[in-house]
Amino acid sequence: MLPFARVAIIGLGLIGSSIARGVRQTMPTVRLTGHDADPAVRAAAVTLDLVDDVADHPGAAVIDADLVILCVPVGAIGEAAAALAADLPADAIVSDVGSCKTEVARALAAALPDAMIVPAHPVAGTERSGPEAGFATLFQRRWCILTPPADADPAVVERVAEFWRRLGAAVEVMTPEHHDRVLAVTSHLPHLIAYSIVGTASDLEAVTESEVIKYSAGGFRDFTRIAASDPTMWRDVFLHNREAVLEMLGRFSEDLASLQRAIRWGDGDVLFDLFTRTRAVRRSIVEQGQDDAREDFGRAHQQ
Amino acid sequence: MLPFARVAIIGLGLIGSSIARGVRQTMPTVRLTGHDADPAVRAAAVTLDLVDDVADHPGAAVIDADLVILCVPVGAIGEAAAALAADLPADAIVSDVGSCKTEVARALAAALPDAMIVPAHPVAGTERSGPEAGFATLFQRRWCILTPPADADPAVVERVAEFWRRLGAAVEVMTPEHHDRVLAVTSHLPHLIAYSIVGTASDLEAVTESEVIKYSAGGFRDFTRIAASDPTMWRDVFLHNREAVLEMLGRFSEDLASLQRAIRWGDGDVLFDLFTRTRAVRRSIVEQGQDDAREDFGRAHQQ
Repeated sequence: MLPFARVAIIGLGLIGSSIARGVRQTMPTVRLTGHDADPAVRAAAVTLDLVDDVADHPGAAVIDADLVILCVPVGAIGEAAAALAADLPADAIVSDVGSCKTEVARALAAALPDAMIVPAHPVAGTERSGPEAGFATLFQRRWCILTPPADADPAVVERVAEFWRRLGAAVEVMTPEHHDRVLAVTSHLPHLIAYSIVGTASDLEAVTESEVIKYSAGGFRDFTRIAASDPTMWRDVFLHNREAVLEMLGRFSEDLASLQRAIRWGDGDVLFDLFTRTRAVRRSIVEQGQDDAREDFGRAHQQ
Repeated sequence: MLPFARVAIIGLGLIGSSIARGVRQTMPTVRLTGHDADPAVRAAAVTLDLVDDVADHPGAAVIDADLVILCVPVGAIGEAAAALAADLPADAIVSDVGSCKTEVARALAAALPDAMIVPAHPVAGTERSGPEAGFATLFQRRWCILTPPADADPAVVERVAEFWRRLGAAVEVMTPEHHDRVLAVTSHLPHLIAYSIVGTASDLEAVTESEVIKYSAGGFRDFTRIAASDPTMWRDVFLHNREAVLEMLGRFSEDLASLQRAIRWGDGDVLFDLFTRTRAVRRSIVEQGQDDAREDFGRAHQQ
């Protein structure tokens, strides 16, 4: 049995449009409605035939839905929820895909005090954005984390979990606070560092930006992929997971300072020991199917 | 006309074995000799048929060569050069593939005061190491930087350049000092940061290492690839390009601190502006063929 029959997607960018495509592929009888605040995205959604009905108003998209998924930047989630509150059916379940869960839970509860809310975070994405960037298999073999409130009905949580499993994801449940610490280290801090180093590299005087680009195959290019991610989404992530990000950043800065000291004093053993330890982490990630085992990411070395 | 007829490769790991394979493919009439300090690597080189003759002593490998390429970690280069000095033909050109050039030039000049030396750095590699990891096309569409001494014979430099062009690389010439600053930012700093964040992530108490691995698709996994690079090689890089690495690290830490401040004070504009700027750098790298344009590196989302 399908977990939901009428799904409304609010926000039709990379994630929203991938959910729509995934539903079409794995749950073809589901009636899909959608809305995006940007008229150009709505027009693209019509052209791409992402959903059965693209509504000009969020209320019109959700009025008959049994699942509403907010796929907007976390800073816009409270406003997006408020805009559809009056039209939300009493038995609809509301979810989202935001990368920070404590603030999102707060914003959703404030905007929709009577709704059944099961926040979700599919840990998947690419550096592209917009409705054209989505694809149906984005969530396959990826994790989707649910952070239901402590008093959530287990049957409701299970329906949302089943929805994500149908899209190909494996589901985990945790508290929003724990989610935010885990993601601060596995996602938010890496993005912040990547953005930062790409900024540093383009501001140098002694080395030109064209040299940085030319010789990027030495390692730098790996950072630029995630530093090409959507600016609005990521600004919001850092502003809404402030505490956990600052905590992880503090630890990282300490560790980096101790490497700096080892380099300054020529302490090769400190460097060698760390570099040996980090190799094992990579091995585990590849073994668990969370990254591509092909060397150098299978990048082409031939024309 | 071939630039060289008899090439000796000292050190048969990822880079040395890739050169050997590339020479076999693009300059099949060249006579190839090789040596590695590790008997197990020498045995593997015989099994893999990497070169025409695997010598047990570096002197025996170079005695008839017109090009000798030292493919050893930069910390071992002086010793490796000294070990073959007595057998080096007077007209042989000596080169290397080290990632730091100022210290390498000093070490080579000290060990081989009368030799013609043209240091080289092919900006290419993967996270794998050892003779099995090499492949003939590793250098194709990559840059190879030559850092000849100021008084080098241009004809000699051109022969080395032509050798690398035959292996598929594009060649640039610069001073060792400028090379070391360029690579500090495009390669050494990214590796240091990647090693550091992987270390930070595995040392947390509130988030387990298995959670870090499980949710690594959020961005963290991109860092683990380069943090799986050869520990000995990279220890040596940091110890031998100390000044440039510390300078770039200082700038990076400053920039990161200013992002930290923007997050703490909720200054979204600072974040948004940087995140928009960094996107353009990525675009240039892809346009110039220095990275794969496939979204998410073309990682498989399906089984």
